[in-house]
Amino acid sequence: MSFDRLIEGIRRTKNPTVAGLDPKLDFIPGYIKEEAFAKYGVTLEGAAEALFMFNKELIDALCDIVPAVKPQAAYYEMYGWQGVRTLAKTIEYAKSKGMFVITDGKRNDIGTTMEAYAKAHLGCVEVMGETTEPFGADALTVNAYLGTDGVKPVLNVCKEKDKGLFVLVKTSNPSSGELQDRKLDDGLTIYRTMGNMCEKWGEELTGKYGYSGVGAVVGATYPEQLGELRKALPHTFFLVPGYGAQGGGAKDVAPAFDENGLGAVINSSRGIMCAWKKEEGLDPKDFAQAARREAIRMRDEITALIPIK
Amino acid sequence: MSFDRLIEGIRRTKNPTVAGLDPKLDFIPGYIKEEAFAKYGVTLEGAAEALFMFNKELIDALCDIVPAVKPQAAYYEMYGWQGVRTLAKTIEYAKSKGMFVITDGKRNDIGTTMEAYAKAHLGCVEVMGETTEPFGADALTVNAYLGTDGVKPVLNVCKEKDKGLFVLVKTSNPSSGELQDRKLDDGLTIYRTMGNMCEKWGEELTGKYGYSGVGAVVGATYPEQLGELRKALPHTFFLVPGYGAQGGGAKDVAPAFDENGLGAVINSSRGIMCAWKKEEGLDPKDFAQAARREAIRMRDEITALIPIK
Repeated sequence: MSFDRLIEGIRRTKNPTVAGLDPKLDFIPGYIKEEAFAKYGVTLEGAAEALFMFNKELIDALCDIVPAVKPQAAYYEMYGWQGVRTLAKTIEYAKSKGMFVITDGKRNDIGTTMEAYAKAHLGCVEVMGETTEPFGADALTVNAYLGTDGVKPVLNVCKEKDKGLFVLVKTSNPSSGELQDRKLDDGLTIYRTMGNMCEKWGEELTGKYGYSGVGAVVGATYPEQLGELRKALPHTFFLVPGYGAQGGGAKDVAPAFDENGLGAVINSSRGIMCAWKKEEGLDPKDFAQAARREAIRMRDEITALIPIK
Repeated sequence: MSFDRLIEGIRRTKNPTVAGLDPKLDFIPGYIKEEAFAKYGVTLEGAAEALFMFNKELIDALCDIVPAVKPQAAYYEMYGWQGVRTLAKTIEYAKSKGMFVITDGKRNDIGTTMEAYAKAHLGCVEVMGETTEPFGADALTVNAYLGTDGVKPVLNVCKEKDKGLFVLVKTSNPSSGELQDRKLDDGLTIYRTMGNMCEKWGEELTGKYGYSGVGAVVGATYPEQLGELRKALPHTFFLVPGYGAQGGGAKDVAPAFDENGLGAVINSSRGIMCAWKKEEGLDPKDFAQAARREAIRMRDEITALIPIK
């Protein structure tokens, strides 16, 4: 297990970014909602259909230029099991288009329960001898407050299936410091301690680009910590949220990369999904093309500063 | 918001316990699986139907003597969106039988994303002006590594809907100490610091029994820390996993309670669900009665030591 497949996608597209798929109904053009609700009524099923239609067009418009998508599980769960079905369909569709899929679920638990999450999102489940892939993402975000017991079961599935995980280390939100920036009695911050644990969990799992399959989530809104962690964690690949809507720019994310322009993938969700709302006079039916233009702008902004070698 | 409704259930049944509903297929008697797979084929849908049939019989057998159930989200997600539909149906059924439902999802995120989780699991979502309850549990477990930004959106939904949350403080697993037991530079452990944050988040939300709607997860496997936290966090209600299968007994959980025998609810999952496998010569069709006998045994064991006043 490693992030080689993701890194190869980044090199192929020359684009170290991931498009977040966090489809609130508010983000979806009216004509899609009308069609979905006409078909399924004003129900969770109708909402879930609108989400899928929106995602599908976005994926079609992005798949040749953006290597990965990151559906955020919360926005699917919000529309009930019907929304969760759209999560599964979205993952399947993005994979069929050659994209690397990171499910942002921040899952956490221990032992066989964590194993259940790992099987659900990354692996397979056995039903009376028949093997099925319930969600089948390529990577999952994980919260490791519970320690190794909450990470090992995911590692086992990742090894078997060549999948990866991203552990929350230093998150992008204003209050992330309340706990994560606190210093332990050895002088290290909690986020740094968590980062060191990622290096340890990833030991002996390094792929051909030097990165293991145990990545870390480090926010674009804390560029100083990004740089500190990039130096301290040479085998840990970063998933960097907080670009765009949350305030991070290309300069802020630059410290996340290594000397080859690798080592990180930068996420934009609302910036890409809602680009159509910002283009004056745009026909909402062209929303996916607006998303593509924003994805290209973001790619060019980042790679102008940090070229991929 | 508070845990008054849960506490009233505990007082009514004179039983400070919660039955975990973590239905792996292995735990389900063969006759149920045969029926479900005959109906839906050997599919995730068949598995999900078996899970629901199992849960329904357990709820029927427990609802007059156990005040609450705790479905563990991972075991439903493992069976895909079909399993997640069973989670929704299980919650609805348990509520219709008067039980308090704690969804063990350990969800965590920030801002509008955490709000989406809170709406999904505890609140309502609006679809074109129509309001729907996607899962509708009474409480949700939450991981607060991200700080106040990850808790506030849940508090807002809890206040509006009289729901509660349980924050992971000191978990029951062997490696919980790797991070949680580490001391900060002020000499307090991380778990104690997290516990103090629970008290703070619950301020001004105290119900009539003195407990707020911000509870804490504290494992039965660490009785010393349970006692320390009970004293330090007088307004924080505890959800205590780790009884039974994980090794905790009545003596271990005793420190979780206050002088009125309140302040905590003790979870048993496998102990109750799999009781039928331990009774020699039992007809598997009587699995729910075996669960009931085990629930009564557990209740009597705990309340013999800690009577509810």
